[in-house]
Amino acid sequence: MTISDSTSDAFLKDFHYVATIGATANNGVDRQAATDEDRQSRTWFADWVNNRGYQLRIDGIGNMFALIEWNPGAPFILVGSHLDSQPLAGRFDGAYGVIAALHAAEEVDQRIRNSGSKPPFNLAVVNWFNEEGARFAPSIMGSSVSAGLMDEQQMLAVTDLQGTAVGDALDSIGFRGTDERPTAAGYAEIHIEQGRILEREKTQLGAVDGSWYTQKLDIEVIGEQSHTGATAMADRHDALIAASKIVLMVENVTGDFEAEQLVSSVGQFVVEPNSPIVVPRRVHLVADLRSNEKEVVETARGKLKDEIEELAQASGLKIAVKDFDIRPNRYFPESGLELQEKVAADLGLSIRRIQTMAGHDSIAMNTVVPTVMMFIPSADGVSHCEREFTSDDDMVAGLRALTEVAFAMIHGELDDGGSQEYGGPHDGGLRTEGSQA
Amino acid sequence: MTISDSTSDAFLKDFHYVATIGATANNGVDRQAATDEDRQSRTWFADWVNNRGYQLRIDGIGNMFALIEWNPGAPFILVGSHLDSQPLAGRFDGAYGVIAALHAAEEVDQRIRNSGSKPPFNLAVVNWFNEEGARFAPSIMGSSVSAGLMDEQQMLAVTDLQGTAVGDALDSIGFRGTDERPTAAGYAEIHIEQGRILEREKTQLGAVDGSWYTQKLDIEVIGEQSHTGATAMADRHDALIAASKIVLMVENVTGDFEAEQLVSSVGQFVVEPNSPIVVPRRVHLVADLRSNEKEVVETARGKLKDEIEELAQASGLKIAVKDFDIRPNRYFPESGLELQEKVAADLGLSIRRIQTMAGHDSIAMNTVVPTVMMFIPSADGVSHCEREFTSDDDMVAGLRALTEVAFAMIHGELDDGGSQEYGGPHDGGLRTEGSQA
Repeated sequence: MTISDSTSDAFLKDFHYVATIGATANNGVDRQAATDEDRQSRTWFADWVNNRGYQLRIDGIGNMFALIEWNPGAPFILVGSHLDSQPLAGRFDGAYGVIAALHAAEEVDQRIRNSGSKPPFNLAVVNWFNEEGARFAPSIMGSSVSAGLMDEQQMLAVTDLQGTAVGDALDSIGFRGTDERPTAAGYAEIHIEQGRILEREKTQLGAVDGSWYTQKLDIEVIGEQSHTGATAMADRHDALIAASKIVLMVENVTGDFEAEQLVSSVGQFVVEPNSPIVVPRRVHLVADLRSNEKEVVETARGKLKDEIEELAQASGLKIAVKDFDIRPNRYFPESGLELQEKVAADLGLSIRRIQTMAGHDSIAMNTVVPTVMMFIPSADGVSHCEREFTSDDDMVAGLRALTEVAFAMIHGELDDGGSQEYGGPHDGGLRTEGSQA
Repeated sequence: MTISDSTSDAFLKDFHYVATIGATANNGVDRQAATDEDRQSRTWFADWVNNRGYQLRIDGIGNMFALIEWNPGAPFILVGSHLDSQPLAGRFDGAYGVIAALHAAEEVDQRIRNSGSKPPFNLAVVNWFNEEGARFAPSIMGSSVSAGLMDEQQMLAVTDLQGTAVGDALDSIGFRGTDERPTAAGYAEIHIEQGRILEREKTQLGAVDGSWYTQKLDIEVIGEQSHTGATAMADRHDALIAASKIVLMVENVTGDFEAEQLVSSVGQFVVEPNSPIVVPRRVHLVADLRSNEKEVVETARGKLKDEIEELAQASGLKIAVKDFDIRPNRYFPESGLELQEKVAADLGLSIRRIQTMAGHDSIAMNTVVPTVMMFIPSADGVSHCEREFTSDDDMVAGLRALTEVAFAMIHGELDDGGSQEYGGPHDGGLRTEGSQA
């Protein structure tokens, strides 16, 4: 069985329409969490759900759920992703997974109604709040709150660089809800790969078996503000010079390992007071270290800490380094991988197992319920930028697979009776050090 | 003749009161141009002037003039500085010069009234708009417009990082005026040194004989935004790594010259999109090069341009470098230096000739009228920071000298009949490439 042409056409029409919300000059989108552009895509989601008579729920952290209930009282299989984006981002990251989930769910609903059967689980489509973490850190916020990995009140108090809190931002766009979250029995998500393995190997689907070990370093360099013209070089305590050296250390440490075994970067870097004629007093930067091997990240972290300590000594500046957002390797259940491989074989789609270097809502959900994570190809492997691209054909192939995975999951294909390492539904799950996109 | 104790007491009382406007946690002030804190210090200036019955004028770029007219129709000697500050700045830079000028002017006015004489020139105290250029670049804006070095309409359209224009910001604090500027016949300013020469040599006054050659480089590094986790190191075009290398090049180039012959820095540095999990696509930075020798700045600029070009080639990034804010060496008139030396000798104050590495309103004014620029000591030579400090005794010594200089100038001591290199009063003066603080 597979989806009809009318389903794939309707999906593509919706996908390309949503890409016009917050559209940027070069085919991208800018829909950061709880901005007006996020409000517009959320309103589109709500209208879509209401037009079909499904029940819409919005919880206290702004997650949106579209409930399709055939078996009153039974738990739900959740399918979804996120509609928020990075600044000047691509139109596929997150949005593809939500819109594919809506159409997969509608297709499954029609099949169940036509058959008159009553599956053991109900189905819900979810749009998680703030997966990107661009405006409000940490990322993967809505799904982590749902999974009990982050505290809701604490997250509502998180502020952006302008000092606006998450709770107030959600209120201002009218999307802080009070509804109960549906009880989850499983979760499935489909997403673009954001790497080039599927493209290079001409493979249509990736069954994600695990995620990389990652951590961030929060680094604060404190120098002293002074006049750029009147202050002798010898009398300066320039925070920007030391911070620039740290950026290069973070890049150079990858050279200690095999190529691409470690990826590292500094994405956030704020200079104060940032006046053309004032020697900078403070730089705050965030370094990101990722590898499939925990030891690689830990070795790199240790070396950076030592080098930064030496720099602090040599420069006489105060440099504080804090570990945060440590995320261990995570593994998705074997039963879900096998389900994806069976579905792909049935549909005649090529598939391979793959790891994710990026974080996803599925990584948070996988700590509490059996979770399936699927990838489709990304052109050139680029993402978080306007030229992110995936073809309509690849998106439709993914939609076909997601539909069958969801159909199997509501029939109990991944139901493990709470015996797996992630713990049963809604028991609060394992507490981890948090997640990141 | 010297000022009375009551004048110096009143000056100190006013100085320490104004330091409470926009006061920061560590004894500094934050009164950036056309902010509410700037409005408060301007209101204080206006009240001071009105309470004494002097005429207040505000021109189209927000410069404030307090006119004392003994000889109707005669041109004015201007005395003053600026009340705006850098972010988290010291309380002496600029404010000292304005408040000393007010008290010097009041003292001179009393002497003239007591004597019943009619000096050839009138006297006006000026608070120049936006000397610092922290919120709105370029710096030295109000005095440069007054001197005809910058265009008033163009400056009113300059925007801050939030997109607010100078004209609108002045309107919003109620300080865009329509008054005619008084016709100037000379200008005097007193300021903290912002260096440590006077302190080291235990000298009370510096007679500024010239200013350094300076220029800025506006540098834009364009990379490509991508996901910090999912993008292989080899596939990245990281603008921040290249920009960090440029910061170090700007520092290292000073090593090509004798110690302190060249001072260089990067004070402004903005990363986009500045998200912890996005490889930066763009960095905009401003480098500042200063030396007493034009050739030193030009050699350093040439080397930096070459090194940046090589970096662009090697990294495959686009890097644009533009020269701006080029300011030639400027020399203050010998007659003014001799006047300061005579005044110091009469008052028993120690004095030496000195250069300024920093820009000042006096440098703009010196292009159109005979100008005197005086320094008093700065503790540790630090400025543009909260711990900037000058003692009450040093400030009072400077006030005594400024009073006598102003008294001499209204009696025509520096009147050159328009024969000097700066051109006569209000002929528009020499056009230069602009000024900077």
